Amino acid sequence: MAVNRRILLASRPEGAPTEANFRLEETPLPRPAAGELLVRNHWLSLDPYMRGRMDAAKSYAKYVELGEVMTGGTVGEVVESRHPGFRPGEMVNGALGWQDYAVTDGTGVRKVDGAKAPLSYYLGVLGMPGVTAWVGLLDLAQPKAGETVAVSAASGAVGSVVGQIAKLKGCRTVGIAGGREKCAYVTAELGFDACVDHRAGRLYEDLQAAVPEGIDVVFENVGGAVLDTELRLMNAFGRITICGLISQYNATEPYGLRSFRSVLTSRLRVQGFIVSDRMELWPRALAELTQWVAEGKIKYRETVAHGLESAPRAFLGLLRGENFGKQVVRLV
Amino acid sequence: MAVNRRILLASRPEGAPTEANFRLEETPLPRPAAGELLVRNHWLSLDPYMRGRMDAAKSYAKYVELGEVMTGGTVGEVVESRHPGFRPGEMVNGALGWQDYAVTDGTGVRKVDGAKAPLSYYLGVLGMPGVTAWVGLLDLAQPKAGETVAVSAASGAVGSVVGQIAKLKGCRTVGIAGGREKCAYVTAELGFDACVDHRAGRLYEDLQAAVPEGIDVVFENVGGAVLDTELRLMNAFGRITICGLISQYNATEPYGLRSFRSVLTSRLRVQGFIVSDRMELWPRALAELTQWVAEGKIKYRETVAHGLESAPRAFLGLLRGENFGKQVVRLV
Repeated sequence: MAVNRRILLASRPEGAPTEANFRLEETPLPRPAAGELLVRNHWLSLDPYMRGRMDAAKSYAKYVELGEVMTGGTVGEVVESRHPGFRPGEMVNGALGWQDYAVTDGTGVRKVDGAKAPLSYYLGVLGMPGVTAWVGLLDLAQPKAGETVAVSAASGAVGSVVGQIAKLKGCRTVGIAGGREKCAYVTAELGFDACVDHRAGRLYEDLQAAVPEGIDVVFENVGGAVLDTELRLMNAFGRITICGLISQYNATEPYGLRSFRSVLTSRLRVQGFIVSDRMELWPRALAELTQWVAEGKIKYRETVAHGLESAPRAFLGLLRGENFGKQVVRLV
Repeated sequence: MAVNRRILLASRPEGAPTEANFRLEETPLPRPAAGELLVRNHWLSLDPYMRGRMDAAKSYAKYVELGEVMTGGTVGEVVESRHPGFRPGEMVNGALGWQDYAVTDGTGVRKVDGAKAPLSYYLGVLGMPGVTAWVGLLDLAQPKAGETVAVSAASGAVGSVVGQIAKLKGCRTVGIAGGREKCAYVTAELGFDACVDHRAGRLYEDLQAAVPEGIDVVFENVGGAVLDTELRLMNAFGRITICGLISQYNATEPYGLRSFRSVLTSRLRVQGFIVSDRMELWPRALAELTQWVAEGKIKYRETVAHGLESAPRAFLGLLRGENFGKQVVRLV
């Protein structure tokens, strides 16, 4: 008998999660009912937002219940279909969770083409993180050529795409990342104009030096002291897209943001968003991203963990910034 | 010889200003050159933004230099004119500062009609504070009928107008004010649905009880703990207009805003603004405000100080919330 392996939320973390918050279990392979399909997942996406789903707190999405399979985006192969829209052998992207196999009725599942791009790209630059970058930068912040754009977590799945789009749009683009190696990648490989290492201990001075004309647009993935520092350097009528606040996800005490007054004095527009609120923009964003990747205008890097059982450890590393680029798990 | 009396910025405050930061001086009456007019000010407006102008800090407007006349909105009578657009006897609104007389070239000066409304109203509900309320609520936050609008400094020159407009638009309107007397005025006289006394020591509990369906729109005049509390009660896709942060203007240590994460989890739009950025909206805003005041749909209350020499003390009281409604100084 074939079995399915799934990773469940075993307990809720207090502060930083540990591997003990997860449990791997084996169950019989599920079978699709009429109108459903069975997918074998090949790739699992790991993303910072998953930390929020581990807490029983009000947020934009329902949290994961104890004993429930962890939420996650996937790419996999249809192995059995009783759904008229899917056939065995087709590759599909969906949010089928931390498991080797899943049954779905097809809601939110789209076909992807492994000939056009590596399948894992549909979890990153050609998937949710890429569209997040596109929407948060171009639709919400709307940078103009010549403006200065600051991007935190600049080497990450979202930030790396944000900065490269900003460069394509003619902006001065400054990254903030953790560590010299990531900063070197951000400038030498991704083509940002500058990158500031927030671990070097001189964040305000270094960022100020990197933005001689101030900051017009922030794409924020980190929050906390990084955001507080950016606020001090904003130009009048600046826009701040709040996409993530990863520095706060494990905090037992929230960071007290001291430079909020800049929102008034510089008349800033600060917009929190999640990409699933803007589904109408996905086709346009994906079309542009696909073209830019095909033309080599957007570079993309992944950290790959191997096997479902490695997902918890890889996820904990992601929260500590140990990944480089997009973190995925190869399941087969 | 007629003299002019003027109040200058004598020194910069550290923390809360004192009367010693101001100096009253007498000078010869200025005379208009060709293209200028001489105005005798009848009314001086006192507003929280003036605290910011006392600091030599980067902000949206140039600060007042030491020894310079304090900035301020005025209504007065043209007493001599060498400007083709103005005649003696006309009443004008401008920003002619804390002084009995002023010479101006007419820039930013508009004629007002004392037959249509009391002259002092052109410094309040029919002037900058009223337009601030209109723009910040209707153009930026855009509340829909049935939504809940929270307004801090609800009995003040701006907040009182914000709440009454929100009621006219069919919103549940909740004020936050300092003290029982102001709260009673906000509900009984201004018609807000509820008002929370932020001095009662139970701000979160009291505000939560007053917004059973959460908050959709915040019009913020106060900041600090008031804003932090509102953030905890925001609904998804809420809008926050940052008009003022009076709780912070005298602070030597900035307040650390702890609930900023709500901007992400509730996908809020936070917009700082000053009304002079939106001059194109003034005619429409003033037309509506004038009509609402004439129809008795917007009520308006003032605290009047008498004589230029009383301005510093009245201004310090304003920063402590001792005024009730719009603070003005009657100069003649």
